[in-house]
Amino acid sequence: MTTSPKPLTLHEDRLFPSDPSQRAIARRLYAQVAALPIVSPHGHTDPAWFATDAPFANATELLLVPDHYVFRMLYSQGVPLDALGIPRRDGSRAPVDPREAWRVFARHFHLFRGTPSMLWLNHVFHDVFGLRVRLDERSADLYYDAITEALQTPAFRPRALFERFGIEVIATTEGPLDPLAHHQAIRDSGWNGRVVTAYRPDEVVDPEHEAFRDALQRFGEITGEDVHGWDGYLRAHRNRRAFFKQMGATSTDHGHETALTADLSDAEARRLFEKILRGDFSAREAALFRGQVLTEMAAMSLDDGLVMQLHPGCHRNHNPWLFRRYGRNVGADLPLVTEYVHALKPLLDRFGNEPGFRFILFTLDESTYSRELGPMAGHYPCLFLGPAWWFHDAPEGMWRFREQTLSTAGFYNTVGFNDDTRAFLSIPARHDVARRIDCAVLAKLVAEHRLDEDEAAEVAVDLAYRLPKNAYKL
Amino acid sequence: MTTSPKPLTLHEDRLFPSDPSQRAIARRLYAQVAALPIVSPHGHTDPAWFATDAPFANATELLLVPDHYVFRMLYSQGVPLDALGIPRRDGSRAPVDPREAWRVFARHFHLFRGTPSMLWLNHVFHDVFGLRVRLDERSADLYYDAITEALQTPAFRPRALFERFGIEVIATTEGPLDPLAHHQAIRDSGWNGRVVTAYRPDEVVDPEHEAFRDALQRFGEITGEDVHGWDGYLRAHRNRRAFFKQMGATSTDHGHETALTADLSDAEARRLFEKILRGDFSAREAALFRGQVLTEMAAMSLDDGLVMQLHPGCHRNHNPWLFRRYGRNVGADLPLVTEYVHALKPLLDRFGNEPGFRFILFTLDESTYSRELGPMAGHYPCLFLGPAWWFHDAPEGMWRFREQTLSTAGFYNTVGFNDDTRAFLSIPARHDVARRIDCAVLAKLVAEHRLDEDEAAEVAVDLAYRLPKNAYKL
Amino acid sequence: MTTSPKPLTLHEDRLFPSDPSQRAIARRLYAQVAALPIVSPHGHTDPAWFATDAPFANATELLLVPDHYVFRMLYSQGVPLDALGIPRRDGSRAPVDPREAWRVFARHFHLFRGTPSMLWLNHVFHDVFGLRVRLDERSADLYYDAITEALQTPAFRPRALFERFGIEVIATTEGPLDPLAHHQAIRDSGWNGRVVTAYRPDEVVDPEHEAFRDALQRFGEITGEDVHGWDGYLRAHRNRRAFFKQMGATSTDHGHETALTADLSDAEARRLFEKILRGDFSAREAALFRGQVLTEMAAMSLDDGLVMQLHPGCHRNHNPWLFRRYGRNVGADLPLVTEYVHALKPLLDRFGNEPGFRFILFTLDESTYSRELGPMAGHYPCLFLGPAWWFHDAPEGMWRFREQTLSTAGFYNTVGFNDDTRAFLSIPARHDVARRIDCAVLAKLVAEHRLDEDEAAEVAVDLAYRLPKNAYKL
Repeated sequence: MTTSPKPLTLHEDRLFPSDPSQRAIARRLYAQVAALPIVSPHGHTDPAWFATDAPFANATELLLVPDHYVFRMLYSQGVPLDALGIPRRDGSRAPVDPREAWRVFARHFHLFRGTPSMLWLNHVFHDVFGLRVRLDERSADLYYDAITEALQTPAFRPRALFERFGIEVIATTEGPLDPLAHHQAIRDSGWNGRVVTAYRPDEVVDPEHEAFRDALQRFGEITGEDVHGWDGYLRAHRNRRAFFKQMGATSTDHGHETALTADLSDAEARRLFEKILRGDFSAREAALFRGQVLTEMAAMSLDDGLVMQLHPGCHRNHNPWLFRRYGRNVGADLPLVTEYVHALKPLLDRFGNEPGFRFILFTLDESTYSRELGPMAGHYPCLFLGPAWWFHDAPEGMWRFREQTLSTAGFYNTVGFNDDTRAFLSIPARHDVARRIDCAVLAKLVAEHRLDEDEAAEVAVDLAYRLPKNAYKL
Repeated sequence: MTTSPKPLTLHEDRLFPSDPSQRAIARRLYAQVAALPIVSPHGHTDPAWFATDAPFANATELLLVPDHYVFRMLYSQGVPLDALGIPRRDGSRAPVDPREAWRVFARHFHLFRGTPSMLWLNHVFHDVFGLRVRLDERSADLYYDAITEALQTPAFRPRALFERFGIEVIATTEGPLDPLAHHQAIRDSGWNGRVVTAYRPDEVVDPEHEAFRDALQRFGEITGEDVHGWDGYLRAHRNRRAFFKQMGATSTDHGHETALTADLSDAEARRLFEKILRGDFSAREAALFRGQVLTEMAAMSLDDGLVMQLHPGCHRNHNPWLFRRYGRNVGADLPLVTEYVHALKPLLDRFGNEPGFRFILFTLDESTYSRELGPMAGHYPCLFLGPAWWFHDAPEGMWRFREQTLSTAGFYNTVGFNDDTRAFLSIPARHDVARRIDCAVLAKLVAEHRLDEDEAAEVAVDLAYRLPKNAYKL
Repeated sequence: MTTSPKPLTLHEDRLFPSDPSQRAIARRLYAQVAALPIVSPHGHTDPAWFATDAPFANATELLLVPDHYVFRMLYSQGVPLDALGIPRRDGSRAPVDPREAWRVFARHFHLFRGTPSMLWLNHVFHDVFGLRVRLDERSADLYYDAITEALQTPAFRPRALFERFGIEVIATTEGPLDPLAHHQAIRDSGWNGRVVTAYRPDEVVDPEHEAFRDALQRFGEITGEDVHGWDGYLRAHRNRRAFFKQMGATSTDHGHETALTADLSDAEARRLFEKILRGDFSAREAALFRGQVLTEMAAMSLDDGLVMQLHPGCHRNHNPWLFRRYGRNVGADLPLVTEYVHALKPLLDRFGNEPGFRFILFTLDESTYSRELGPMAGHYPCLFLGPAWWFHDAPEGMWRFREQTLSTAGFYNTVGFNDDTRAFLSIPARHDVARRIDCAVLAKLVAEHRLDEDEAAEVAVDLAYRLPKNAYKL
C-alpha cells in the first residue's frame, strides 16, 4: 500500500485484435461509427431521472447499489450485501456509510479483471468523471469524492448526461399498471430528449408471479375492462398497448422462463383462463397460459404494429435465502437450457409468414445460436435476433454471437445492440464496446478477404445505427 | 446507382489467418493440396446432368432456383418465393421472368455478407464465369447475360465442368425405388467420369414420411419381396443395397429426426412392424421402428461392406404454410437438440467393436462435438465423424468442428470433406473453402509449435484426399 | 523408412499466440510462473509409488498401459487392447512382449497429432528422458531402450522425480475402505514430500455400483458403525472423513452420473435408505439417494472443513463388450448432457450462503460453462469452478473454459489447474500447458487493452499457485 495508484488509461485501440492488419482495418471501420448517435431500443433506465432531472446522490448510490452485475460478483466472494448498503426487501437498509461501501467495492475491484463490468466502469471513471488512476483501496476515497462532487454539478444531471452521451432515443420498460406519469412529465416539460416506453406485461401474464392476482385486479380497474373474462382480459391488453404506444412505445417485451407458445382453440383458451383465475392450475398450465398470451400478443402486434421481444430462459430468484431478505434482481437469476424450434412453432405456424409482424428473440443459452436461432432467423420473415444478452453481453459473448449466427442469419437478420441496462452512466461504454467488437468482427472478415472493406463499412454503420432504428421502428 | 460496380476479386490468401507467420505456413500447406483431385463422397447432384450432358438453362435456373441456402435468406427478409420463380408443390410456377428473378437476387446480395453462400457464389462468378465486378443491382443484367450465354457453350456442359473441376469421383444420393437409369446411362455412355450412387432409404424406413405407404408398396413390387412381412422387408433392403452397390454405391445414408437406435428381439421387431403396417402406431413407436431399421442396416453393412452414414437432428418442413405451397426442401428445415451417447448405444452394443463396420456420424447440434461425438469417435473402432454439416458448413463452423473434436478424436477419426450439395457449380468452391480452413487450422498448430510443418503437410493431404477415399472405400 | 527420424523439439514459445505482440506479453507473464512449485490438488497417482519408491518397470508399463487417453485412441483405429498388453478384467494379459506393444504404439503415434496426449508425451520424452528424435516406427526401439534403461537409475525413482518436478504438494484419491497404509508409510518414512489423500466414497454412495453391497458391508466393519441404519451410515462417513483428514486430506470428491442433489426430510431419507438396502429401488431412487448423500456430505464439510468436489456427467463403461473383457477405466467412458441450475438447487438452498462452505464444480458438458456454471459461481459464495476437465483438458478446451466463464465468474471464482492424472511423468507437462494457456489468455487481454500487464502478472501467479492452494486449503 506504499506505492501510488497505477494510471488509468482507455487505450484508443482497446478491444481491437492485436494483429496489425486486422487492427488497422478495425480502426478505420470504427472511425465511421464511433460518433454515431446512440439508439437504445431496450433498457431499464428510470424515466423519473429524465422527468425530474434531479441530481444523483453519490458514487455508491449511482454506480454500486443499482448494479447487480457488480454486487453479485462481490457477494460470490463473500461480501455481505449489507456491507454494500443494498436495500432489503422491506425497503430498510443496513446502517452503512456509502463511503464505507465504496471502499469495500474498491478493495475488491480486482475481482472484475477480464469482466465487462470492469470495462464499462473504467470507461465511466475515465470518460465521464475524468479519473486518471485505477480504482483500488488506495484510490477509493479519491474516487468517492470526485464522483460525488461531480454529481452535484449541472453537467452531471440526467438530461445533461443524456445530451452529452449523444442519445438519439432511449426506451425504458414499464409494466402494464404503470400510469407513465414520468413519460408524460417528460413530454410536458418541453425538453426534447426522446424517451419512450415499452410494454412489459409479465405481472399480468404470469400466473406464478407473486403479484399476479393483485396486478390483475388493478389491470381491470385501470382499463375499465372485466379482466376476469377472457375477452375483457384481451381487450385490457389492447387498451394498455394503445396507451403505451401513444406514449411513444414501439415495442412490447416478454420475460418468460421458457420460449413456449401455444395456439389453443377459443374454447380451450377460455377454459384455461378460468383455471388460472381459480388458482387451480399446474406448472404446465401456467406455462401454457403464458404461451397462449404470447400468441395473443403477436396477434395484437399485427394490428397495432408494436414490435415483439421475447427474453426467455431465466430462472429468477434461485437463492431463496437471499430472496427472502433482499427480494428480486439481486444477482441470483440464472440461465436455463432453452429450446426454440418446438416451443415457438404454435406462434410461428399462425404468424410466422405475416409481412407486418416483427418478433425479436433473445437467449441466455448460447448453444441455441448456431443450432436454432440463426437458422430460424435465416428463414422466417418475422424473426430477428436480439444481441448477446445479459450474461453474454461481454466481448467474448459478442464474438460468439456473431461467429455462431453469421453463416445462417447473416448480419441483416440481427437488430444491432441493446444496452439493456439500468446503469445509465454505462450506456456510452456499452455501445462503444458493441461497436468496437462489431468492427473487430468485420475487420477479421476483411483481413481474411471474405468481405471488401467498403462492404464492411456499410455493415458497421448498419449494426451501430440503421438496424436498431429499423428493427424497432424508431 | 451512379457509381460503377466494384471489382470482384478472389484473393489468393482468402480464409487464411492474417497473422503473417500463420499465413505463410497456411500458404505452404495449401500449395500441396490446392490441386488435388476432388473426392466428393456425399452429395445431391442430379445424375441426369451427367447422363444427358444437356446444357443448363440460365443463371436463375442454375444458381438461384435449386439453392435453398440462397432463397431462404431472401425469404427471411421478405422476398416472396414466387418473385424468385421457386416451383410450387404442384409443379406450377408464378409467371416470373428469370431475368427479373435474378435482379431481385442481385438487389439483395448484400444480405449474404459474411455467409458461406457469398463465398461460394463469388468463387463461381469469378472462377467459373470469369466475372470481375461484384454482383449488385447495377451488375445484375451483366451477370445474367454472361452466365446464361456461357451455359450455352460446350465448355459449360455438365461433363465438361466435371472434368474442369478435377472431380475424381462423386456420389449422388438416390431413394430405394430409384431405378438408377441415369447411372446406368452414364456407364453405358462410355464417358469415364466416375459418378456413383448412395442408398438413402428414408421413405421406406420412416413411417411418418408422407409417401411411406405408397413407397413401401412400390418397394415390394420392385424387389419382388413380400415387404409386408418383416423378413421380406429386410430381404428387400438387401436386394436393393446389392443393386445400388452394383451401380457403384459404397455407402448408405440415413436422415432421421433423432439418432435413436434399437435392438429389439426378433419377436418385438415383428410386432412393431405389424403395428407400423396397420398405421396404428405412436410417434414413439415410429421412432423405435426407424431406430430398429438403423440397426438392421448396420447388420447388412457388415455383410455387404457398405459404409453407413447417419444425418440426424433436423426438423423438416417447420413452416406449414410454406410446405403446403412449395413442398419440401424450401429452406424451412431446422436443427434440433440431438443426443448420441444413449441413442446409439443399442446399435453400438451389437456392432460397435466389429472390425469390418464403418459408421459415419453427422450433427446439426454443435454442442455434441466436444461432449459426445469427439469422445465417441475417439473410442469406438467403427465410428468416424463426418465434417461440419449443412448450417455449420461455413468457415466458422469448420473451425469449431476441428477445435472441438481435435483433442478427443484427433484428425484420423474424421473423414475429410463432404460438399453435400445439389449446387454443382459450387463444388470446387466448397472443397476449396474446406481445404483452406483445414490448412489454416494446421497452420495455427504449427505456428504455436504443437506440430511440425512436415506432419501438418501430411495431415493436410490426408484430410483433402486420402481420408475421404479410405473412409468411403472409394 | 529409409530416412532418419525427425528431430524432436520443445519450442520455448509453444502454445503462445503467434501474433508478435501477444507472444511477447505471454513470454513475460510465463517467465513469472514457469518455475513456481506444482500444487496438484486433485489427481490419481498411486501413493504406493511414493511409499515404496520402487523403480518403474519399462516404457510400456509406465507410459502406455496405465494411460487410457492413449490406448483408447489406438483402439478407435482398430488396435486390439491385447496387442498393447492391457490387463484383462481377471488380471490376466495377452502374452505380448512390452517392446512389441511399444512398437505398435510408435507406429500409430501420428494419430495423436493435435491432441494433448502428443503434447504431454513429447514433453516427457524430451524433458524427462532427454530424447531428441520424434517417436515413430523407426525410433521405437531407441525410445524403448532409452526409457527402460533410465527407469532403472536412481534419478528416475518416484521420489526423485517428485522432487525434480518441483511438486510442493500432491493429492491422491482413495476410496473410503482404503486403509491409507501407503500414506502412513510415506509419513513414517521421514521423506518430506507432501502427498495427501482425498475422500472419494462413490462405492458406498452409489447403489448401482457393482461393488456397493460388499463395500457397504466392509464400510461397517472398518468403522464399527451399523451402516445399515441411516444414522450409522452417516456416522461411518464422518468417521472415515476424520481419518482421511488426519492423513492429510483437505477435500472430498464425488463422481456421479448427474449433478442431482436432494434435501429430503429425515423420514424420507430413512425410508429411501431402507429401499436402497433392500435392493428394491428404481434408477430414479438410486439417483435420489446419491443426491441426498451429496447434501449430507455438504453438511459434514461445514463441520470438518473438507472442500467438496463434484465431477458429474460421465456415462461409465459405455461399451459392454469391452467392459466384460477389460473392466473399468479402459477408455469407454463418455460425457453426458449435464444440468446444474435445477440439480444443485436443493443443496444450495440449504448451504449455498454458508460462509465456511466450499464446493468446486466440474463438467464434461462445455455448453454449461457460459449458461450455468459461470453465472452460478459468479453468485454463490460457496461455489468455485474446477478447471477444464478430462476430455476438455486440452489447449482448446482450456481456452473455451476461460472465454466462456470469464465474463460471469471472473478469474477469482476458479481454482487454478488440476492435473487429474495417474500418468505421473506427465504432471509437469500438464501444469506447463495450463500455465502457458493461462498466460496466453491473459496476453490477449493485455494486447487488446482490457487489462494492464501488472494486473495480468498478478492473475497469472494467482492461477498457477495461489488459487489452488487457497481453494483446496493446501
